[in-house]
Order: sequence, then C-alpha cells, then structure tokens
Amino acid sequence: MKIESIKGNVAAPKGFWAGGIHSGIRKNKTKNDLALIVSETKANVACTFTLNKVKASPLRQTMKNVADGQAQAIIVNSGNANSCNPDGDEKAAAMCRLAAQTVGIDAADVVVSSTGVIGKPLPLEPIEKALPALYASLSDEDGTPAAYAIMTTDTRIKEITVSFEIDGIACKMGAIAKGSGMIHPNMGTMLAFITTDVAISSAMLKSALGDVVEDTFNMISIDGDTSTNDIACVMANGQAGNKEIVEKDSAYADFEKVLRHVSTYLSREIARDGEGAGKLIECRVTGAEKEKDAKKIAKSVIASSLFKTAMAGADANWGRVLCAVGYSGAEFNENAVDIALSSKVGILHTCKDSMGLDFDEELAKKILSEDEIVVEIVLHDGEHCATAWGCDLTGEYVNINASYRT
Amino acid sequence: MKIESIKGNVAAPKGFWAGGIHSGIRKNKTKNDLALIVSETKANVACTFTLNKVKASPLRQTMKNVADGQAQAIIVNSGNANSCNPDGDEKAAAMCRLAAQTVGIDAADVVVSSTGVIGKPLPLEPIEKALPALYASLSDEDGTPAAYAIMTTDTRIKEITVSFEIDGIACKMGAIAKGSGMIHPNMGTMLAFITTDVAISSAMLKSALGDVVEDTFNMISIDGDTSTNDIACVMANGQAGNKEIVEKDSAYADFEKVLRHVSTYLSREIARDGEGAGKLIECRVTGAEKEKDAKKIAKSVIASSLFKTAMAGADANWGRVLCAVGYSGAEFNENAVDIALSSKVGILHTCKDSMGLDFDEELAKKILSEDEIVVEIVLHDGEHCATAWGCDLTGEYVNINASYRT
Repeated sequence: MKIESIKGNVAAPKGFWAGGIHSGIRKNKTKNDLALIVSETKANVACTFTLNKVKASPLRQTMKNVADGQAQAIIVNSGNANSCNPDGDEKAAAMCRLAAQTVGIDAADVVVSSTGVIGKPLPLEPIEKALPALYASLSDEDGTPAAYAIMTTDTRIKEITVSFEIDGIACKMGAIAKGSGMIHPNMGTMLAFITTDVAISSAMLKSALGDVVEDTFNMISIDGDTSTNDIACVMANGQAGNKEIVEKDSAYADFEKVLRHVSTYLSREIARDGEGAGKLIECRVTGAEKEKDAKKIAKSVIASSLFKTAMAGADANWGRVLCAVGYSGAEFNENAVDIALSSKVGILHTCKDSMGLDFDEELAKKILSEDEIVVEIVLHDGEHCATAWGCDLTGEYVNINASYRT
Repeated sequence: MKIESIKGNVAAPKGFWAGGIHSGIRKNKTKNDLALIVSETKANVACTFTLNKVKASPLRQTMKNVADGQAQAIIVNSGNANSCNPDGDEKAAAMCRLAAQTVGIDAADVVVSSTGVIGKPLPLEPIEKALPALYASLSDEDGTPAAYAIMTTDTRIKEITVSFEIDGIACKMGAIAKGSGMIHPNMGTMLAFITTDVAISSAMLKSALGDVVEDTFNMISIDGDTSTNDIACVMANGQAGNKEIVEKDSAYADFEKVLRHVSTYLSREIARDGEGAGKLIECRVTGAEKEKDAKKIAKSVIASSLFKTAMAGADANWGRVLCAVGYSGAEFNENAVDIALSSKVGILHTCKDSMGLDFDEELAKKILSEDEIVVEIVLHDGEHCATAWGCDLTGEYVNINASYRT
C-alpha cells in the first residue's frame, strides 16, 4: 500500500479541527500552552496510558470519558502536569466541562491531558479565559499551533500527516506528539494525539493502537523515567466514508500499517529530540529466540547511561553495549553476540561471538560523529527481532533538568 | 557491642599483608594499577559476584578457585577489565599462577579480579615484571597502596578498618573498595575486598556476606549499569584466636554486625564518590507492607535520572520522587505517600498523602545545597523499611564517560 506525506497534522483528516494558543499557564508569552482538537462528529477513540501507579488527574478523568469508546474533542495544556494536587481531579473535570461548553458537546466526550511540572496547582482561569479565542482560531487545515502548545522541553514540534487508501477510499491520518523528558518504555510513554477520518470500530481501533504502541512508543527511552501523565490517543471519526472496519481483515491490516508508520515516525522524532540529545540512536536486535528477549535487550542498551554518554563522545565503547545486553534480563547465548555500530558513512564491526574485534579508531570516530547511529546486535538463538530508539546523554540533559521546576 | 575505628585497612587484621604498585597496565605512571593481598595462612573466603549474564574472565576463574571456601591471596588490577577478550580466561588463570608463584602458594587459592575497560586484551608482561617488587613491598600495617591500585575513575580511596571483640577476643576487620561507574544494585555491585582475623567457618562467612550485601552494596546505584566485573570478597584467616564461629549464635550476630558496619560505610562512600557526583543521596523508605517493596521504591528513587539531576541543581522537585515511587513496580497505597527532603541544616516536608505541600523555596535551596541529602518516603502500609544510596547526576558524569575508553 502507498502512504504519502501531506501537510496539516491532526487538522488534516476530514472533519477534524485543531488549534493552539498561549493562555498564561506558562510564563513565557511566546509559547503556546493550550491545545484543542475537535471532531465535527463523534469519533471512536482508543487510548493507552502510563503504567506508573501514580496517575495524573487528567488521565484518570480521560479513562472514565473514553470507557464507552467515543470522544469528540481533546484538550491539552502544557506547563503544569496537574498531577499529585489535592484539587487535581476537580480541575481535570472542570477542563472537560469548559472545553465541552465552548465546543457545544458533552463533557464526557472530552479527552483531557496535561503535561509539565508535577505537584503544582493548575490554574483554571487562564484556560477558561482563553477557550473562546482558541475555539475561534481552530483550523481544519493546519494543526501546527496545537503541536506547539503541547511542547515542554522539546526543541521542535513532532508532527506527521499521511494520505492513503482503504478499500479504494482516500483516507488521512495526522498526529502530533511531545516528548523530551521522563520518557521510558511503558505504555504510551509521552503525549501523542492521532486523528484519522477512517471508519473503524472502537474495538478494532483499540486493538490496532495496543499492538502498535508495543513496538513503537514503548520502545523509546530517553531517561528511564516513566511519567505520571503518558497518553497515546487516536480518534477516528469515519468521515472518509470507507466501509467501517469491524474485524481483522485486509482493511484492518492496512489501517494498522498506517498507524505503525505514523507511530514509528513520532517515536523516532521523540527519541531524536530527547532532552539534551545530540543524536538519535536506534538499536536493532535480531536472531533472538523470543521477541520479548529481543525487546528486553534493545531497551536495555538504549537505556544505558554509560552507552549513551559514550555516544555523546563518539566513543565506540561497545563493551558497554555487551554489558547492557548482559544485565537486560533476557535469555540469550552470552558467547554468541555480535555487535556493529553504523551510520550513513559506514559500519564498524566491533564484536563477534562476544569477543572484541580490532577496528580503526579514526573510522569509528567518523561513523559515530553522525547524528543518527544504529547499534546492530546479532544473536544466534532464533528468528525474532526488535528495535528500540533513544538518544545520547549529554551535559545539556543535566543542565535542563537541574533546574526544571524553578 | 563496640566497634572502633583504627588504621591500616586490609593489612590491619592479624596475618594479612597488602600492597599496591604501578605495573604499567595504566599509562599514567603516578597511578597504582596492581594490588596484592596475602594471608599468612589459608583463610576461609566468601564472594558475591555480578548477576550480569556476561561475566568477565577473572570472575569465572575466581568462582572456581573459591568453590572450596578457601583462599590465601587476592590479586587485582585496574586499567583493564579483562572482559570479552578471546584470551581472557587464559590470562585470568595466568594472573593466579603468577601471583601464586610469587607468594609461594597454590594457584587455586588465589582470588583474581580486574577492573577497567571491557574488550581490550590484558597485557600480562607488566604484571609478571611488577610482582616481585609488589611482593617485596607488602605491609602488614598499611594497605593504602592497595586501595589506590584498585581505583578507576574514583576520586579518592575507599577504606575502613575496625577493631572489636568476639567472645572477649580482640579482632580486626579491614576493607577496601572501588566504585564510581557502572554501578547498580545486583549482587556485589563494584569491587570490595574485606579481610578479618576472625575465626569463622566458610559456610557462616558466606551466609553473613550474602545477607549483608543485600542491604548494603546491592542498595547502591550510580548509573543503573550493572558491571561485568563486580565482586565483593571477604577473607577470614582465624588468626585472632576466637572460638571458630560455626553456627548462627551470638558471636555470629556480632560478626554480622561488624560486616554490616563496614559494608554500609563502603556503600555510602562509593555512592558519595559516584562518577561526577557532587553529593551523597540517601533514600529511606518506611511503612511498607513488605521489605521487597521498600527496597524496590528506595532503589527506583535513587536510580531516577530526573531526580538525580534535580538534586544536582538543588531543586526540590519532589514530583520526580513520587513519580519514581510510582513506576518502581512496588505494591503500595498510591494515595498515602509522604515525602520529605532533609540535610543537616533542616527538613522540608514536600508531600503528604501523595499531594503537594507548600514550602519555602529559599529553605529548600539551603537544605539541598548540602553535600549529603536524605529523601524520606513514608508509606502507610506496614512496618517494613529499606535504605538505598546514590548520588546526583551532573555534567561531570557525562564528561567522564563520553571519552572513557579513548
């Protein structure tokens, strides 16, 4: 199937509108901090949430609101996570109510999400005051202001829009995401909002999102910290007019392929723009006996602080890769691990059968100075594979996080 | 019982000799890189090893050598981990043979350990050449040169020596350790060598070390990376002349108390001197239903990159503490968590029943600018508790590790 890139992100699919505005939750007036995404008609919805036992109030509210598999609007603020606040539940419910009043829908059809500092009371006044202007600004062509509004320490927006066909009918899918810090594999590990005009039942939407999240958003790690506010949400309003997907047929497979394409792209972009990151690191594991072992190994390598700092310094310290493979908890033959480091300028075979190989240090430096590095780990235990994404660990990560709250 | 601080570390207990020398494995001639510890008579020995599936050659050799519960010498080099090398097993065996020849004992009675870069062939010549001079330099009073010889990126030596009585007999225990990087709870998470003249059976020695390691060395995390070379080793040669401890009686309890004192001290010193660390962080969890939950929570907080960077910036970002509690995998009532941050200048109650409390930002800054911070987490689920140690995450950690190998 053909998946083509187009423009507009979440506002591109038929019947979707999106906008973003500076409401005043964030002090910096040049930064949007409130996003609204609206579907003209009720949409089917599926979400995955953080597995952190401490869940933010907006997440708990959204869980209730999407239990019936339907939603019509998404409201998101940045600058405050509305997590661990005595009045958090109340305020999350109020955000739904305010958004619903503005849009003219039922409060139970609103997905609410917040991101930012934990444990500071969320001010409702800026949201209430900004909503009319935000609603007036909604566009059905360009969701860029919404993409800006959900950013925290992100240095750039993450968005993707694609067109494709299901059963010969033209369909679209758009998405925005934010990443940067407190990011570690465990359900939707950041905020991602995806819209599509495909007609698909909420059961099938849930199934597709669940499968895709496992291989994409859950395979990113920036810093090993699983946030209290993570959510990945997809709304499908059916306005493309295809025959509704209600079972796992070829149309479902096509839909999943598109969702996987979009989610993989966003996952890579989130990893690439990790807090303080200078480069994207992709870890591909092949030859595992079981998929879960391949995943454990890929995640373990991507999350290793020592390997990440070596990548920051363009140092081919493959011993740290093998070390992270060793403590991953995966089952594998520890005497038959091959490791290669590569980038677009070349490949460096560093380790064969778990033993070091001689290599050219100058070539190593050249390869690892690129901004996209692939770590290839070949096991000899079976046919399963997995890919995970992360970034290098730099002094800038420390600078960003040493004074994030104050 | 009274535990008194004295001088001499591993050379202090009766019948123990220790030394350290620059052999040439490390390029820097001012740094010792080879240590030798010898007991006049055969000693009982107990070790714990890394749980990393990839184990360095010296560790595998030592496992064989201590299987009979006895040893008489320890040889350790820094500057090269002798891990993941095709000729690693051979060289580890050769190190035992060379040390045994020099000392005049059986090669099977040698504990061998290496620390440094993974995957570079270990040169034997410097060791062979340096051993006679090292042997000649052995002291039965001062083990300081040995403490220096096992350092890698450590900024200072870690040593402790104590005297105490068992059944009215004067005994001593001395220890040296190295820490700094690739440190995460999982069995002996660094190198630690402990000597004592107490008479104790190897079975009781093993039992005491196993219990103590769980609560001390396994409760440290510097960077979440479990090394391939970790070892904690205790030798007891019985020369103090007490009645041999062969069961869990009051003498055993006293011995365990001393071993716990020594191991706790070294654990804190290793954490305090973590790579790039500016401060020691102690996390105390109380009120857990089960000990394993308390441990999971304490370790999770200590290992959180985000909390560690906040501490580097003296930022009271308690939300990151609660977040790490939430994703620890422990069972607890998530609505009844209290968090306080303290140092010698005061205490800051930041969170009660999982909700933020107002606090004085200036006082927070003052408290967190100290070099020893305690994070106190009070659960309301039971009576169990745990303590873990770590350090802040600074730009210096990145600097150290970005070019460690080259």
